Amino acid sequence: MMTVNPSRTIAELKELRALTADENGAQRIAWTDTWLKAREWFTSKLAGLPVEDHYDAAGNRWITLPGVSKKALLLGSHLDSVPNGGWLDGCLGTMAGLEVLRGFAQAYSGRPPVTIRVVDFADEEGARFGRSVLGSSAFAGTHSIAADRVRTDKDGVRMDDAVRRCGFDMDRFPEATREQENAAGYLELHIEQGPVLERLGLPLGVVLGTKGVERHGITFHGQEAHSGSTPMNARRDALAAAAKLALEIRSIARKHSDAVCTMGSVKTFPGIVTSVVGRCEATLDQRDLDPGVLESMYEEARQASIRFAEEERCTVDWARIWSIEPIMFHPSLVSLCEAAVTEAAGRAHRLPSGPLHDAAEVSRAGIPSVMMFVQSLRGISHNKIEDTREDHLELAITAFANLAGRTAAWISGE
Amino acid sequence: MMTVNPSRTIAELKELRALTADENGAQRIAWTDTWLKAREWFTSKLAGLPVEDHYDAAGNRWITLPGVSKKALLLGSHLDSVPNGGWLDGCLGTMAGLEVLRGFAQAYSGRPPVTIRVVDFADEEGARFGRSVLGSSAFAGTHSIAADRVRTDKDGVRMDDAVRRCGFDMDRFPEATREQENAAGYLELHIEQGPVLERLGLPLGVVLGTKGVERHGITFHGQEAHSGSTPMNARRDALAAAAKLALEIRSIARKHSDAVCTMGSVKTFPGIVTSVVGRCEATLDQRDLDPGVLESMYEEARQASIRFAEEERCTVDWARIWSIEPIMFHPSLVSLCEAAVTEAAGRAHRLPSGPLHDAAEVSRAGIPSVMMFVQSLRGISHNKIEDTREDHLELAITAFANLAGRTAAWISGE
Repeated sequence: MMTVNPSRTIAELKELRALTADENGAQRIAWTDTWLKAREWFTSKLAGLPVEDHYDAAGNRWITLPGVSKKALLLGSHLDSVPNGGWLDGCLGTMAGLEVLRGFAQAYSGRPPVTIRVVDFADEEGARFGRSVLGSSAFAGTHSIAADRVRTDKDGVRMDDAVRRCGFDMDRFPEATREQENAAGYLELHIEQGPVLERLGLPLGVVLGTKGVERHGITFHGQEAHSGSTPMNARRDALAAAAKLALEIRSIARKHSDAVCTMGSVKTFPGIVTSVVGRCEATLDQRDLDPGVLESMYEEARQASIRFAEEERCTVDWARIWSIEPIMFHPSLVSLCEAAVTEAAGRAHRLPSGPLHDAAEVSRAGIPSVMMFVQSLRGISHNKIEDTREDHLELAITAFANLAGRTAAWISGE
Repeated sequence: MMTVNPSRTIAELKELRALTADENGAQRIAWTDTWLKAREWFTSKLAGLPVEDHYDAAGNRWITLPGVSKKALLLGSHLDSVPNGGWLDGCLGTMAGLEVLRGFAQAYSGRPPVTIRVVDFADEEGARFGRSVLGSSAFAGTHSIAADRVRTDKDGVRMDDAVRRCGFDMDRFPEATREQENAAGYLELHIEQGPVLERLGLPLGVVLGTKGVERHGITFHGQEAHSGSTPMNARRDALAAAAKLALEIRSIARKHSDAVCTMGSVKTFPGIVTSVVGRCEATLDQRDLDPGVLESMYEEARQASIRFAEEERCTVDWARIWSIEPIMFHPSLVSLCEAAVTEAAGRAHRLPSGPLHDAAEVSRAGIPSVMMFVQSLRGISHNKIEDTREDHLELAITAFANLAGRTAAWISGE
């Protein structure tokens, strides 16, 4: 039986933190020097392993331990982080994948029954250019990569220039789909980034899929007016319409059990203390695992915004920022994950993932995929205080190895 | 009887607009070159008049037509504007004052029964340094001028440096109170800047006083959290608390007939589409002519904010930005203004001023004061589309001359 050394993985994660975080948290933003430093550090962890190591055309890194069968079990996540990020988001999955590869190498004297591949996807966070799951999208061959090349960062640097500086060419990104060859399964261990498991008192969770997302910019147009001289009944207050919508989206979400609706940004114009708000720009992010629920929530929010605009004698415009359909993980792998979690923790809870992950893109490529979540303390991520209990991390790495063993057997047809 | 030429004043206002506005509106921001240009232009309008002209220590300009009595009737307003401002706000009152002075000079062969003084107050708008009614405050000897010197504009220029560049020294501002000597009355004609007169179909209004203002910054503190992974019932959404308050302040204002409450600015942090709002900063501006109403509205808003913070498991902080008590104009001058407006327009409507004006500061100095309003089209000001019908402007200047005549007689004790 394969064994893993979870405390080694935890030590490695701390080493990576020491190397790539500052007092504000992790700074491994994709296509920056700190990210390249993290990838170089990762190389040092491969010494002595009987593996092949290369980057694909989209900057994803592949560590391959060839097996008796060419059919490959993929394990991974991403080393890149958001600015001021935590010590676990992404790198936990990559380092746990590497630990499991080591376990396979040791258990099978360097030649496991199926090929084991660890992947470090490029730019999952989209922190610099606003395009998340970039590398895994290229791997999956899903679209928009070509259109993304002209994106710029806050300093005006174009994405294709930043990518080229790291040795890659966006024109060649489509070639990354070659890595799909022989891929028979994909497993990703990730922190939950939410409070559900902590509230249930459970260390681990089985992820059913990633929620679909409807993301819109909503602008209410009223009339800028002097705060002192404009009677209440003469106002066309764009903020009032937006405030009504900010409250209404919560009622809309609560009609559906796991659904979420968020107004994350509100901007007021002219935005001064002495003026009624003439224009209010808000963002809306809606998510659910059920495409029907997602569509209905979008429609309800739109109708509500029109009603509120009318009530306030304003007008309203909607512009889609981005959307993605819900992605369900493979039912057989969900069952294997449930078995592995139950064996490790006594009880398994199934939950959807609100955040998007590389696993969603791998799944879109038709590769059977599943994710395992480990509890996040306080449900906080994308922040330097992101944390998980070390005993939970150890349990998670052990359970993930168990899942990998089961999945390798499933791939082999055992 | 004194006569005035209102069409001359309108022509002068258009001349000033041509000189100091660009395609975005008036740019006569105090302590800038364009403002100095406007003041230089004003000099050209004094040619041939038997007047004395000087600046006081705070940069207010005084044009004096000596009368038989040293007791002085002050007429004025301000030439400075907000950025992208209108063609009437402030300069109408100054130019109408000058026209009335011309009328007195002509009617009394250069020596009217009382001294007539036109004042162009410095920096009424506070557009560059955020300190409104600066010059008239210095004249009135009200406080905070000394504390204001360290204010900076958006480029980091200190107020006292900008003032010095125009030839004045903030250390000497208190000397401006000398101009109070012999002042026996102050009259100011201004555009309403609100929709009340237009809605009533009246060209002119009698201003009862300026509303008191409570101006606060309100910050709700919740918890930043991932919009995808944080269930609705696990959120501490600072925007939701602010949205409730944005709606509640309207109910609070509507309990009182002329009161207004405005949330003019809302800022969300981190303010990104994928995060629940962890911190929300809002501004609240509350105004009424009755100090009791003002105090009660402030207390109601504060209590509501605490209740909403609790409902949303947030906390709330209040910080006073600025406040001023209501200032009632002199009852005798209000009556004279009513008589003048009735004579010109057949009917007089009394209304409070929501915006603050130089007249409020002059009134605080104990000088009997009153303002006359002329209708604003669409109630819009501080905007290049600010406008007033020309027949209304002519009527206003005529009625203002009538008021000045009545006030001069009142000062003389007739």
